[in-house]
Amino acid sequence: MNKKAVVLLSGGLDSATVLADLTARGFECHTLAVDYGQRHRSELLAAERVSQALGGVSHRVVAVDLRAIGGSALTDDALDVPTELSEGIPITYVPARNTLMLALALGHAEVLGAGCIGIGVNAVDYSGYPDCRPAFIEAFQVLANLATQAGVEGQHCRIDAPLMHMTKAKIIQHGLSLGVDYSITVSCYQATDAGEACGVCDSCRLRQIGFEEAGVADPTRYAQS
Amino acid sequence: MNKKAVVLLSGGLDSATVLADLTARGFECHTLAVDYGQRHRSELLAAERVSQALGGVSHRVVAVDLRAIGGSALTDDALDVPTELSEGIPITYVPARNTLMLALALGHAEVLGAGCIGIGVNAVDYSGYPDCRPAFIEAFQVLANLATQAGVEGQHCRIDAPLMHMTKAKIIQHGLSLGVDYSITVSCYQATDAGEACGVCDSCRLRQIGFEEAGVADPTRYAQS
Repeated sequence: MNKKAVVLLSGGLDSATVLADLTARGFECHTLAVDYGQRHRSELLAAERVSQALGGVSHRVVAVDLRAIGGSALTDDALDVPTELSEGIPITYVPARNTLMLALALGHAEVLGAGCIGIGVNAVDYSGYPDCRPAFIEAFQVLANLATQAGVEGQHCRIDAPLMHMTKAKIIQHGLSLGVDYSITVSCYQATDAGEACGVCDSCRLRQIGFEEAGVADPTRYAQS
Repeated sequence: MNKKAVVLLSGGLDSATVLADLTARGFECHTLAVDYGQRHRSELLAAERVSQALGGVSHRVVAVDLRAIGGSALTDDALDVPTELSEGIPITYVPARNTLMLALALGHAEVLGAGCIGIGVNAVDYSGYPDCRPAFIEAFQVLANLATQAGVEGQHCRIDAPLMHMTKAKIIQHGLSLGVDYSITVSCYQATDAGEACGVCDSCRLRQIGFEEAGVADPTRYAQS
């Protein structure tokens, strides 16, 4: 079995846990972060820290200018990040983001000869983004088998989403059992350059609830309000 | 029926024909070119010319740094573009390129509220790239229906590949019947900055054979050798 993997890192809690999980399962992990013009630039610094701390063998950053498309509070400065959890899909949804992330990971995996892509999507404590659901990941798996030269030659690249059915609390407990230091991760949609979290966006709220329900201290550094 | 479309333009012959085809079918076409660090930069200038000449309502360029990944003669200067048609998939294959292009088009379509994506893939006179085959496009259609907020709300975005089963000669005849001026297109993998073609790469050879078989004069400007 091919034990080389590409792991998508956002700098946040979930993808750090995926990296720790795949490393613990014996994978040689090559991490990939995508600079898509997101507001929360400190996530990219966090992704690099996470890769180094959790055994990433290499780390790449691919720049994609999604600001040329816009349509999300994360890629359009004219749209504010909401500070309350909302019904439905929030404006922080970035159109086709995970399709794009997985496409880049698939290309990187093919160049490296990796047989696995790790991604931290989750369909329990999440913001309702359509491209985090199991059916989406299954459809991408079918696509990946058809999309590449490696796939045509029968070397399929498996999409591994180990957090899909875990609660946020369970993810945190799993990561802590693997030695993840969550203080180096940044989940906030509008963190300061120093990586301090706002405490009120969707992503911050889901994270806070996770630490509460896991019964462990929240190591997040919050900006002074 | 939603008559707004995003059309992927490479600057080459096929995608120009797709734009002419969709425009003739009454679509309001928003064109998208992807600057992925390709060697043939003059293709991006050609894409803009094609959009203007063939009725594009808007034109965007999204930059994606695929040189961070490499693995193709088109994105790695250390790899030469072959000058002979070869057996198998040539080194000009860019890992997961069409998956990436379609992901960007899908995001753009969602922001615009477009119900169609036009793409010039072809599985007859082509270089054998896996992500040009009908099964790949069908798999992307399934993915697209699951990937976006629009899809979740039942507004599916249809992937339209009108050239899929045409010979290169048939594509040229179809385009000419719609008034396409192929002299403004650039297909060459290593065109000069002025858009002059090398005449010997895979893409040039397929294009030359197409004009020959169509029985029309080749308007391509070739570099003096």
